[in-house]
Parts: sequence; structure tokens; C-alpha cells
Amino acid sequence: MRILDSTIKRIQPLDKAAMDKAAQRQDQLTKPRGSLGILENISIQIAGITGKSIPQIKNKAIITMAADHGVVAQGVSLYPQEVTAQMVLNFLSGGAAINVLSRQVGARVVIADMGIAVKLTASENIICKSIGSGTADMCMGPAMTRTQAIDSIEAGIDIVEKEIKQGLDIIGTGEMGIGNTTAASAIVAAITGKPVAMITGKGTGIGDEQLAHKIEIIEKALAVNKPDPNDALDVLSKVGGFEIGGMAGVILAGAANHIPVVIDGFISGSAALIAAGICPQAKDYLIASHLSVEKGHIVCLKHLGLKPAFDLNMRLGEGTGAALGIFLAEAAVNLLGQMATFAEAGVSDID
Amino acid sequence: MRILDSTIKRIQPLDKAAMDKAAQRQDQLTKPRGSLGILENISIQIAGITGKSIPQIKNKAIITMAADHGVVAQGVSLYPQEVTAQMVLNFLSGGAAINVLSRQVGARVVIADMGIAVKLTASENIICKSIGSGTADMCMGPAMTRTQAIDSIEAGIDIVEKEIKQGLDIIGTGEMGIGNTTAASAIVAAITGKPVAMITGKGTGIGDEQLAHKIEIIEKALAVNKPDPNDALDVLSKVGGFEIGGMAGVILAGAANHIPVVIDGFISGSAALIAAGICPQAKDYLIASHLSVEKGHIVCLKHLGLKPAFDLNMRLGEGTGAALGIFLAEAAVNLLGQMATFAEAGVSDID
Repeated sequence: MRILDSTIKRIQPLDKAAMDKAAQRQDQLTKPRGSLGILENISIQIAGITGKSIPQIKNKAIITMAADHGVVAQGVSLYPQEVTAQMVLNFLSGGAAINVLSRQVGARVVIADMGIAVKLTASENIICKSIGSGTADMCMGPAMTRTQAIDSIEAGIDIVEKEIKQGLDIIGTGEMGIGNTTAASAIVAAITGKPVAMITGKGTGIGDEQLAHKIEIIEKALAVNKPDPNDALDVLSKVGGFEIGGMAGVILAGAANHIPVVIDGFISGSAALIAAGICPQAKDYLIASHLSVEKGHIVCLKHLGLKPAFDLNMRLGEGTGAALGIFLAEAAVNLLGQMATFAEAGVSDID
Repeated sequence: MRILDSTIKRIQPLDKAAMDKAAQRQDQLTKPRGSLGILENISIQIAGITGKSIPQIKNKAIITMAADHGVVAQGVSLYPQEVTAQMVLNFLSGGAAINVLSRQVGARVVIADMGIAVKLTASENIICKSIGSGTADMCMGPAMTRTQAIDSIEAGIDIVEKEIKQGLDIIGTGEMGIGNTTAASAIVAAITGKPVAMITGKGTGIGDEQLAHKIEIIEKALAVNKPDPNDALDVLSKVGGFEIGGMAGVILAGAANHIPVVIDGFISGSAALIAAGICPQAKDYLIASHLSVEKGHIVCLKHLGLKPAFDLNMRLGEGTGAALGIFLAEAAVNLLGQMATFAEAGVSDID
């Protein structure tokens, strides 16, 4: 059996008994019931994911996957393609936003080359899983083959399985890839069936004219490839990206291993759509962090039945929103585990 | 000169030059311009507050002030008055939500008795600034004298001045006081002029009938006392609380000493209204953290010209939202100071 199939088979419903116990404990902690809001919900979800009524989060990883996109030849992005590789070098030297936030939240950053166009010098600090030197231009035909789509997902699964050996209590998804809001917009439009213009945003900051062009290119790519919305692998191969497939694999592997996966913004959301298309049960293992400025993100989250925890007007990617989300998940779990109960603290409860 | 007057005199406009430098640096960091959203704004604000174009946040304190309220005799709260003292003991033994979150964000919790009804056993870990054993019942007359109002504010100022000696780069406000959403609602209604019913929420979780009663009590208190909306000390003395006065003092002292003050939820917001009423310039030193479930909070923040950074559906107080806000402020400052520039990282910028 392929790794993808065996991974899907391991994805189970959440542990209801652990969730009930966690919910009961929340109601005994020294605070008005429900007063910790979303943090209470997240703690109960993580209890269900891990099967532990008092879960702990110690080992945290942001998995940031980089790849290039052939569609940049169509002039959809503000930045040149070489920025993907340049930013990966920035990740490796610790100077990017994701490095700063990961240091603050105590998460390790795992960088993977999923298919950068430029060949990077080998480094201990990057996992090489390159599926190709960037995808093909999706407005000329499929971005990748179906085999490459599966390979990219299985690469993501393999990375998680190896990271688990170092200890892994929570995962954040992240990405870098010039042109990848174009791929993500195409995926979200294909799967949700919403109009491209409703989904497509300004990415790194293009102007109105370039946005209109970007929308046309995505519409062309969808017309040329006709991705089947009921076949997530078909959507990924026709209009996706290698890092998006990789993140879908990370999500599936997280779910298979009872590890909560905090998803970042729009591109990560498109990967979650692919993962959920392959295995709907995986959705329960997801924690949505921030709401991106990219207008398609809310459409994507609604389709997944997820609500973003916060909105800081961010649109950077890399896993930056996920890093903040990991902090919140850790807060949720710490509160559940470390607060005193009314009985322990000798505080009068209401009847 | 009284300490309050000399403190107000020290509150200056933000340092525009430091803000300009910070904004310029944000535009050179390796990310699309503006893509860190609110975090960029907060970093620039803190540059202006501290006068440093690359500020640092190392020493963090949540100042959590506790006091009782005579108006609880009117049956406005779900919990009995003794819970104020019981929760303070819980703070001191580290079992409350604010302790858990402060540990996570690396902030010290400074607990102050501003006027708890029950006499607590002396402890090294609580600062005794008691103005009285709870306020008087505000629906019978003023909650406190004008002198007590000033004393409560000056107590807050004194606490900050002493904490600065231990190092203090950012302050979070917090409180505990059964009945204090009633006092806060009265303050917000008095100062903003909005109807009491629009301001008043369910506090710790009262039902609809008790809410209607709470609204009546607040309306009665305002009718009996006629607080002058243009005289914040009058409002504080007529319908406030000792911990609310204390937090107003914390805000004024933070502003006077160029230290950012992260305000928590509704009660902290009412203290900010008092502080801003006394010295409007103090508003620029405030960072609004979460939006509380208490419906008057958004009214209060709008009046202050502040936008909450996030909404987690919380309504606990203690400084819990402020603790999360301090984490965000630290993230903002870390990103500004620690990210590489395009030039440093050799990343191609757009023209």
C-alpha cells in the first residue's frame, strides 16, 4: 500500500471521552464558566486530538515548505522568482519573520525544499524533498503530474514521521513560493466553486491592473485544466504547487499521529482543502490561526468549517500566523492543565 | 504638588522621529511591505512611546489590582463578595489564569490590594494599598470620596514607580473585584453618554432577569450621584472602584515613564477612560489587547479611539487578555529588531 493510503487509514475521529473530561475540568477551574472563550474550545479540541484529557505541548515545530511556480512566467507576482531561494537562505540564517516568531514561541523551524527552481547548496538545515525545479505553467497545462502530486504529499508525510522521533506535540504549517497565492486561489476556486474574482487577492501587494491580469490567468488555468472538484489529487496536480502538496501531507500525517496542526494563512488553507478532500476526517485535527488579508482565505476556512482565532491584518505566510496560533494553543493547554480548581483553591463556586 | 499633578505634567507626545525611523526600517525588512499588519503598527507605536527606533521588551509586568464594591449588596453579581479575597489568595499561590499566562509570556504578576473587604494576612507577595474595605454602595451615594479617588490613582502611580526600579519595559493592567463590571458599566455610561442598557453585560454570567436588575441599579446610581462626564475624578469617586482608580494610575505612570501599557478588557478599559479623562495624551501610550464579551467594551474602546488587536471571546479579567497582548507586543518589537533587511539578507526587493 502506498504511504498516502496507509496514512489516511490511520486517521480516526477525535477521542470523545478525553474531550468530555477536558470540558468537565474547564468547568471546575477558578474562573466563570466559559470565560476563557476560544481558548477553552481549543483545549478541548486538543484533548480530543491527543486522546489526553490534560494534554501537554512541549515540542513544537513549524514546517515551512518552499517551492516555485511556473505560472510566474505570466507576470502574476510583484517579486521575481529568485526571491523564493533567497528567502530560503534567509530562513536558514535565521533572519526571516518566521525565525523571529518561532524563537519567541520556542518552536523549531523545519525548512523543506519541495521544488525550488534554483539549485541550493546542500545544507544540513534544509530537508531536500524537491519534486522538480518548480511546477509547470498551469495556464498551459497541468502544473504537475498526478504522480508528482502524490509524491509531494508523501514527502510531507515523511517529514512529519521523522520529526515525531524528535518529539512533536504540535505542528504549524508554513510556506514560501513566489506565485503561490495564484496556485492557492486556483485551488480554492476549483474546490469551493466560487468565482475566481471573489477568491483572488493582491498577494505580496500587486496593483489593481496586475490583479485583474492575475484573475484572468487563474480563470485560464481552470479552463485549460478543468480540475475535478471532487478529486483533490486532480486539483493539486492541475493547479497546485509542490509546497501545497507537501503541506497537505503534513496535515494528513499530523492527523494520523494525533498531533494538532495549526494552519497558517491562505496558502496553508488551500493545502487544508486538498487534505480534507483526500480525507475529510483530517479537518478535526486543524486549528485555524489568523485570518489572512487575502480575500479567498475566509472562503476557504468556511468551506472547511473552521473559524480563524484572530485577525491581525497579516499576509506574510512562512508560518507566521501559525507560530502565533501555536502560542495560543499552548496557552489553552497550559490553562487547562495548570489552573487550580475551585476545590483546590478554596474559592466559592456558584451552585 | 501632588504626585498625580506632577505625573500628568511628565506625559509627553510620542517621539515622532523614533516612529519615522521604525516605519522606515519596517519597509526594509525581508517581507512584503505592510504584510505584518497590526504587528507593524504596534512596533512603530512602541518606538514612539519609548523614544527608541528599535525598542526592546525584556521586563514585563502584569499589575493585577483587587478591590471590593459596596454595590454587590444590591445583588448584581453571580458570585459572593468573599470570592475577591479568595481569588487573590489563588493569585498568590499561582493557580489562577493570570498566573498561567504570565508564566508563559515571562511576565511577573504584581498583586495589589486596593481595598478588599476581607482583611488578608500580610504577605510579601501582595502590595497593600488598601483605600478602604470596599467602596460604599453607589446606588445610595458616592462610591468613595474625591480624596479616596485621588489616593487610589496615586497608589497605582506609586506601584509603577517602584516596579520601574526592577526593570519595566511593558505593563499589563488587570483586576479582580466581585461587582466591578457594574462599576465599569457605570463609568462607561457616564463618560460616553451612551444608554446603560447598551453598555451593561452579564459579567461573570448572570441571567437575563439579573441583568435587567443590574441595569436598573446602575441607572439608579447615575441618577443619585450625577457624575460629571467632563470630570473623570468625579466619575471615579461617584461610581468607580478602588482597583479602577489604581489602574488609571498605572496607565498615567506608564505614560509618564515612556512605558507602553497593554490594557485588558472591560474594567481596564473603564480605567483607561478615567486616565484619558484626566490626561488625554495618555491614550497614545495604550495598546488595546482583546475585545471582551462584555458589550460595553467596544463602546469604551471607540471612545478612546482604540482598536482591539484580537477577539477570543474572553471575559475573565485579571489581566488575561493583557498577558496575550504583551506577547503580541513583544512579537512586534522582536520582528522589528531581529528580522534581516533586504540588503542584509541579499534578497531582491521590488523597485
